[in-house]
Amino acid sequence: MTSTTTYPSAGQLNPTPRLLLGPGPSDLHPRVIAAMTTPVLGHLDPQFLLLMSETQEMLRSVFKTRNELTLPISATGSGGMETCLVNLVEPGDRVLICIAGYFGERMAEIAHRCGAEVHVEQESWGRTFSLDRLRDALRRVRPKVLGIVNAETSTGAWQDLSSLGALCREFDALLLVDCVTSLGCTPVEIDAWQIDAAFSCSQKGLSCPPGLAPLTLGPRAVEAIRRRKSPVRSWYFDLTALQSYWGTERVYHHTAPITMIYALREGLRLVLEEGLEARYERHQRHARALQAGLQALGLRTLTEGHCQLPQLHAVLLPDGVNDVQGRKRLLEEFGIEVGGGLGQYKGRVWRIGLMGYNSRANCVFQILAALEKVLADCGVRCHRGSGVAAAEAVYANSPS
Amino acid sequence: MTSTTTYPSAGQLNPTPRLLLGPGPSDLHPRVIAAMTTPVLGHLDPQFLLLMSETQEMLRSVFKTRNELTLPISATGSGGMETCLVNLVEPGDRVLICIAGYFGERMAEIAHRCGAEVHVEQESWGRTFSLDRLRDALRRVRPKVLGIVNAETSTGAWQDLSSLGALCREFDALLLVDCVTSLGCTPVEIDAWQIDAAFSCSQKGLSCPPGLAPLTLGPRAVEAIRRRKSPVRSWYFDLTALQSYWGTERVYHHTAPITMIYALREGLRLVLEEGLEARYERHQRHARALQAGLQALGLRTLTEGHCQLPQLHAVLLPDGVNDVQGRKRLLEEFGIEVGGGLGQYKGRVWRIGLMGYNSRANCVFQILAALEKVLADCGVRCHRGSGVAAAEAVYANSPS
Repeated sequence: MTSTTTYPSAGQLNPTPRLLLGPGPSDLHPRVIAAMTTPVLGHLDPQFLLLMSETQEMLRSVFKTRNELTLPISATGSGGMETCLVNLVEPGDRVLICIAGYFGERMAEIAHRCGAEVHVEQESWGRTFSLDRLRDALRRVRPKVLGIVNAETSTGAWQDLSSLGALCREFDALLLVDCVTSLGCTPVEIDAWQIDAAFSCSQKGLSCPPGLAPLTLGPRAVEAIRRRKSPVRSWYFDLTALQSYWGTERVYHHTAPITMIYALREGLRLVLEEGLEARYERHQRHARALQAGLQALGLRTLTEGHCQLPQLHAVLLPDGVNDVQGRKRLLEEFGIEVGGGLGQYKGRVWRIGLMGYNSRANCVFQILAALEKVLADCGVRCHRGSGVAAAEAVYANSPS
Repeated sequence: MTSTTTYPSAGQLNPTPRLLLGPGPSDLHPRVIAAMTTPVLGHLDPQFLLLMSETQEMLRSVFKTRNELTLPISATGSGGMETCLVNLVEPGDRVLICIAGYFGERMAEIAHRCGAEVHVEQESWGRTFSLDRLRDALRRVRPKVLGIVNAETSTGAWQDLSSLGALCREFDALLLVDCVTSLGCTPVEIDAWQIDAAFSCSQKGLSCPPGLAPLTLGPRAVEAIRRRKSPVRSWYFDLTALQSYWGTERVYHHTAPITMIYALREGLRLVLEEGLEARYERHQRHARALQAGLQALGLRTLTEGHCQLPQLHAVLLPDGVNDVQGRKRLLEEFGIEVGGGLGQYKGRVWRIGLMGYNSRANCVFQILAALEKVLADCGVRCHRGSGVAAAEAVYANSPS
């Protein structure tokens, strides 16, 4: 029954390299690339089990938590979002989702698919939620889970969370936080901020390839899972089963993505070698330089100043600049990728990321120089070299 | 609020290399390792979109199908299983699962979580299902989906599927096949066998790291999804949304695991360069050599001869051999990993895999020599060198 047709294979893998200054993936740190060439181990090899434990311990340090249930899900960041929701929510549970961008919307959509009764609190894209407003919403909805985004990848807005955990406890709600774009770039304090569940990704602040979703759940979230009346609807994302593999029992669940775990482990080592505070300060410093450069070029960002993330800047496109053509030029002429806008900002912003390994002066200079050229050719008036010069001035005044 | 504690990072990644002769992961082909060092592209970069299309086209060749909906899921093989079931099954749908091993059981468990009314057809582990028996079951249950495993990773049994698709059509049932351990090792003929949906993994016959689940769905399966009354319960595994990204629309869904796609693309190139028939014949040849060697050592496998997979051999442990200690010796003294038994065969078999890149004479010789040493030390009588000699005789009689 086997036919004998032959099939052509594709040519050698040989893409033109890019500098990834969009919303992620970001460029891999060279040491992460090297780690991925390490010979593969079996998923139950004692050597690999040790690497798993080390990865979890470093994840706890980066999340600033002592949560036992801290592990990377074998899926991308959105898979981490689904894992948290499908485990915490049972059909009919009330969930309150705060939406001020694309990824808040995604959280509401996934909660809906989990069978939740979804209530949403809407804010204009690029803005954030005040504690008073969230208190009113909690009082009105009385949700089992409040879901919110710490760093909104679609707008570049930073949501303060430092007192939200305490507020959620007043209302006996679990606090679920999307840290996809914050982890490794801006402070994430799971225990100090009393966050019950959080998820992130590998390809932004951690400078690894996309493919893993680190997450952490605290005691209240674990207890909520233990008290479920119905089985978790997903087998693949069932945290109780996953914990049996990642915990001390070491019961086989699915074959862990070994090479990706190698990458994550190396990415976490780099974060801890640098030190969390030094890393956050580095992101702030290069963001100041970028913002000074953007301002000198006459560009503004979507967010208001106080909530601008250092790792992601949604730049409003000036009149006369064509989104698709402009990004195509950046990509093909300068080898730089920036992100287009999402949702209502499609065609209206470019999202510039300075994340993890790519939060460095070379990246700031390259994107400012390229932007100036592309904008000038579209008729946008800017002084030659003004963007780079403004960034240089920032660096001169704040040496590393 | 940021505390200033410093945290230790783990040491340099430096595991002792292993030869992976278990049920997977299998060793990566060196060209796959090299491909993973290629600079990361953005998930919407035109260069990456082209690589995606090439990967899909090669996947179609390896699956022997023209199915448009052919793509790798961003999860491991079990995630592919869940993707097929969560898309094809709506709550209350009748599903018939054929169980003759651990992975048939997994399929029933996942179908149950999807809300299906699950009926099972049980067979002893290591045996397979006759067409007559499946006809009776189809007549009795009248399921929407019949799920069956092509190559049972827990037993090493090969299930013939060549006429099952036609039978399922008689009963208007969709045929869903687990090809996790078959793809790239033994023939998989999606179109010729009229298989409606199938999934596999990256880390066995394709010699890539674990982390992707290639799958393919035919027109009848796609129509079943189109006719759903309820939304797919999983957002991450929603094939309609995934097809919008992988198809011509190129609508962002989640960030594709770029580096893993590079690996898969290279693994598929290697399969097609070798040629499917040559690859299947290679697996048969080294399996004959291994089986001759095992026989010379007085060892038997769990399956009966006619349904023994060439890529996976579940060897029954002779009296006097301690499972855990024996595998530990293989691992630590010889650097070879074999798999332990699953379920009812835990402690009773060792699963030896010769998959993809590791289906070669060196692997056969190494495992036979190591087995002989470990067995002899446990008091099992075997002539010195008899296993390797028997394998050599097979090679001498069937030169490549």
